[in-house]
This record gives sequence, structure tokens and C-alpha cells, in this order.
Amino acid sequence: MRASIALKPVLDAIGEQIDARFDRLLQVPEDPRARLYEAMRHAIIGGGKRMRPLLVVASCDLFHVDRERALRVAMAIEAVHCYSLVHDDLPCMDDDDLRRGKPTVHKAFDEATAVLTGDALYAIAFELLADEAAHEDPFVRAELVLELARASGPSGMAGGQAMDLAAEGARFDLPTTTRLQQLKTGALIGFSCEAGAIMGKAAPPIRMKLKGYARDLGLAFQIADDLLDVEGDPEAAGKALRKDEARGKSTFVSLLGVERARAQAEMLIDQAIGHLHGFGAEADLLRAVARFAIERDH
Amino acid sequence: MRASIALKPVLDAIGEQIDARFDRLLQVPEDPRARLYEAMRHAIIGGGKRMRPLLVVASCDLFHVDRERALRVAMAIEAVHCYSLVHDDLPCMDDDDLRRGKPTVHKAFDEATAVLTGDALYAIAFELLADEAAHEDPFVRAELVLELARASGPSGMAGGQAMDLAAEGARFDLPTTTRLQQLKTGALIGFSCEAGAIMGKAAPPIRMKLKGYARDLGLAFQIADDLLDVEGDPEAAGKALRKDEARGKSTFVSLLGVERARAQAEMLIDQAIGHLHGFGAEADLLRAVARFAIERDH
Repeated sequence: MRASIALKPVLDAIGEQIDARFDRLLQVPEDPRARLYEAMRHAIIGGGKRMRPLLVVASCDLFHVDRERALRVAMAIEAVHCYSLVHDDLPCMDDDDLRRGKPTVHKAFDEATAVLTGDALYAIAFELLADEAAHEDPFVRAELVLELARASGPSGMAGGQAMDLAAEGARFDLPTTTRLQQLKTGALIGFSCEAGAIMGKAAPPIRMKLKGYARDLGLAFQIADDLLDVEGDPEAAGKALRKDEARGKSTFVSLLGVERARAQAEMLIDQAIGHLHGFGAEADLLRAVARFAIERDH
Repeated sequence: MRASIALKPVLDAIGEQIDARFDRLLQVPEDPRARLYEAMRHAIIGGGKRMRPLLVVASCDLFHVDRERALRVAMAIEAVHCYSLVHDDLPCMDDDDLRRGKPTVHKAFDEATAVLTGDALYAIAFELLADEAAHEDPFVRAELVLELARASGPSGMAGGQAMDLAAEGARFDLPTTTRLQQLKTGALIGFSCEAGAIMGKAAPPIRMKLKGYARDLGLAFQIADDLLDVEGDPEAAGKALRKDEARGKSTFVSLLGVERARAQAEMLIDQAIGHLHGFGAEADLLRAVARFAIERDH
């Protein structure tokens, strides 16, 4: 086993780089749109683990993609992730007051602004990808857009959210719960890992390896989330916990029990790392992310 | 003055073509996402004037763009328009029960589904544009995405919506009201007209003409909307009317009065048609749209 990379400093560094770029991109205009921009900044600057941006950067590193371009794609994915959190936190959805240790957007601002903030961040994501600064080859830009639209739309994240709405009281079985999570969180994690292969114009078999890595990582990550939901401290997590059980939603823990869920997550992480076979030290960051996924306590 | 084209049959034909394509695209899956797809279909099939799709088709016709591709871009713009209506109708926004003569999505379904429906339609729009079926040249696809993202994001439609939230009770002056409408509805109308020039790879001066046409048309259209809001019949309009006044929002009618507003709309339509100088009969459809914009009674 290779020496493990300390992930926290890497995540922090990427977080700072992403924040600095969003700070420049989302300058508050001196007009009645100011409140919208303030809310967008509240939603995206200075919070979150930045796991998806890290996956983008790590997958881009495999193919020696220019770091500035990788960060641009990372910003796009983080914008989609944050838009989905803002909408998911709305009173008509999960009705959460706390996110990343701060009041949610509809609490700090208002519901209408929260709806628009999500919408505006979604637009920003596609603007970031379609701009020449993302990649000099327009084919790559169009492909990034296509894959992000699919990963976040009704065949991806939005579809997973719809399943999540239907899950309340439905006690989904394991295959349906797996499918739900593959759409709700897996699709975007998949795109984060595939982005490097798209940017680096990797051959299809290489791209498949990253897809496999992402599929296993995404599920392990969700199982770890479900474990944290049962065992975690809401203060450390910066959000409300133990809500799924109360709503009659199936989780990997309710379906498998704590011990089997943990074993399943560990097996998935081994599998995820297995997909990276053939890559050298340049994939150590992705390997470290996989291990981190089931070790984190928040 | 050229013979006027009867616009109603053209709008109806495009509406049918758009509906048939959305019917195929949005087949309801046999899984827990079914409700989301039903709601998307409710929001986009069989309703609305289809003014934006008509503008796309008409502007594409100027450059002999393949009709199937033009319809694809038209679908993308209609998807964005419909997503914005679904979110705009939400209780936390305009709180409307009726849209296009049908219950709004949050009434026919529920609020959470309405939020997701808007999000999912937005994703579909970018998926439609980024796919090879939209245009064989990836540069064109990336440019369509970039321009649509800008037109619908915080520098465009979403920014206009944010201004609209701030407008309540603020009694904006004429320049601010004009700016609000240019963002809220003008940006997407602008993209609808520019789309043909992008698809047809028109030279910049030609593209500028279409931008000018769209700018004037968009404002005239909004003034006509404001007039309709004061003078119209809610049943014929298929939506609630006379809400702006009650909320202390400025409109072109409250700022200018009915007579000056009407004169302004007519002047803008003359200007819009003026931008088409140099085009021959192939621009008659755009000319007819401009005249229709201030003659419609719903």
C-alpha cells in the first residue's frame, strides 16, 4: 500500500483557490440585483468540503490538464452542487435551517431569493464550461456541457431528487435506494471524475476506468453519509442529522444495519481503488480521496 | 408595406411540432421519477403562444438553417422559458394558481415537484443545445450554450427576476423598469433572435441587426403585456391580471399612462422592423411577429 496523502491541506488549498475565483466572478453589482449576488456568494463561497472540485482537479492531473482550466471546471461542478443544496434546503423540500454551519439561503435571505440563487448558480455553471477559457477545443466544451446537463438533469441529479421525494414513507428496497443515490449524488461525482478524461481527451477505456472509480466511490461516500447521519454529531457536521429515519426513508444503514453498511463501504472503496490499477503515482490523490471518503467524521 | 403574414397558423404549426418533439423526449419512465416527468410535460406541452420558438425558427430561416435543428434550439429556449414560469409561479414568488389556462405546476402537483420541474427543464435546455443533433460544428454548440447561459443567468433573466423581487413597493423609475424588463424577458427574446445568426454563422453586422430587432421587439412586447394587464380579460389571457399595481410595482403603463405606452410600443415596433432593412422577403415572418406583438389580445 502506498503512503497515504494528507488530504485536508489539499482540500483546503483547492477550497481557497475556488473561493478566490468565485469572489472575482460574483462581484456584487450596484443595482437591484445586489441581493441575488450576495445570496449566491453566501451559497458558494467559504463552505463545504470541496470534494467534487478535488475530484475534478485530481482527475485532470492524470492527464496533465492546465490547473487553471481544471479549476474552472471544478467551479462549474461546485456551482451545480451548491445550487442543488440551496433548492434542497427549501421549506418545500428538506426544510433545513443550517448548511455548512451557516443559515441556509432562504433563512439568511428569503425563499424567493433562494429559488433564484439556485437557478443563477446553475446558469453560471454552464457559462463557465462553454467559455473558451475552459478549453481551447470547442468539442471538449460542448461535451463538458452535455455531460453536466445529463448528470444534473432528470436522468441524473434532479431525477434522484424526484426519487427522494417519492421515498418518503415508501421504504424503498436496496436496489431502488442504490439507484436513487446513484442519480442524486453519484451522477455528479461521476462527472467530476470523468471531467479530467474529457479535458485530457483520454481514450474510452481510460474514461471507463474513471467512471468505475466514481461509481464505487459515490456509493461508498453515500453509505458513509448514512453512517454519519446515525452516528455523527450535528454540530461537527454543520447540518441537521437523523432526518431520514424520521421521514420513513430507507438508507443503506436502515437496509443493511451499521456493520454490514460499513463493510459494504469498505469493499466499495477497495473496488474504487482497483479501477485505478494501471495508473502510477499520478493517481495517488484519487486513491487518497477514496480512503478519506469512509474515514471522515463530518 | 408588405402583405402581412397570418401569424396564428404559423404559431400553431410550430407549437404542434414542438409538442410532438417534447412528447417523444419526455417519455414518462416507469420508476419513481414518473411524477417529475409528468410535471415537466404539464409545464411544457400544449400551452403558451410559442413566441420564442417562432422567433428562433424565423431567425434560422434567414440563414437557411435546417428546420429540424432550428426546432431543437427552439425547444431549448422554450424549456428555459417554461422553467422560469414554473419557478415564477411558486407561492414564494408570484404565487399564481393559473398558467396558460391550466393549474400551475405546484397546484397540479406540489411545490417540491415544481422546484425540481424547473430545474430539470433547465438541464434539458442545455442538453438539447450541446448535443451533436443541434449543429455539426461544436463551436456553434458551445456558443449557443454560452449565450443561453448568459441570457438566462444573473446577467439576464434570473437577474431580471431578482430586480422584479426588489421592485415590489419600490416604484422603479422608467430607466430601471426598462432595464428590469430587458433582463427579465428581453434577454431570452434576444437570444431567440440571435440563435439563427449563431446557427447560420452570420457576420457580426448581421447579428447586430437581429440583436437590435430583438431589443426593440422585447420592450414593445413587454409594454403590450403591461397594457393587456390593465385592459385584458383574465379568462382570455389564461392567467391572473392586474397584479403589478396591487404590489406597488412600476409598469410601463403606470409610468407612461395608457396612451403614451401604446405610442411607445408602436414606435418600438417600427424601429424593430427598421433593423430588418436589407433583408428581403425571407424576413417577412420576423416583420409579422413584430406587428403581432402589439396587436395580440392575449
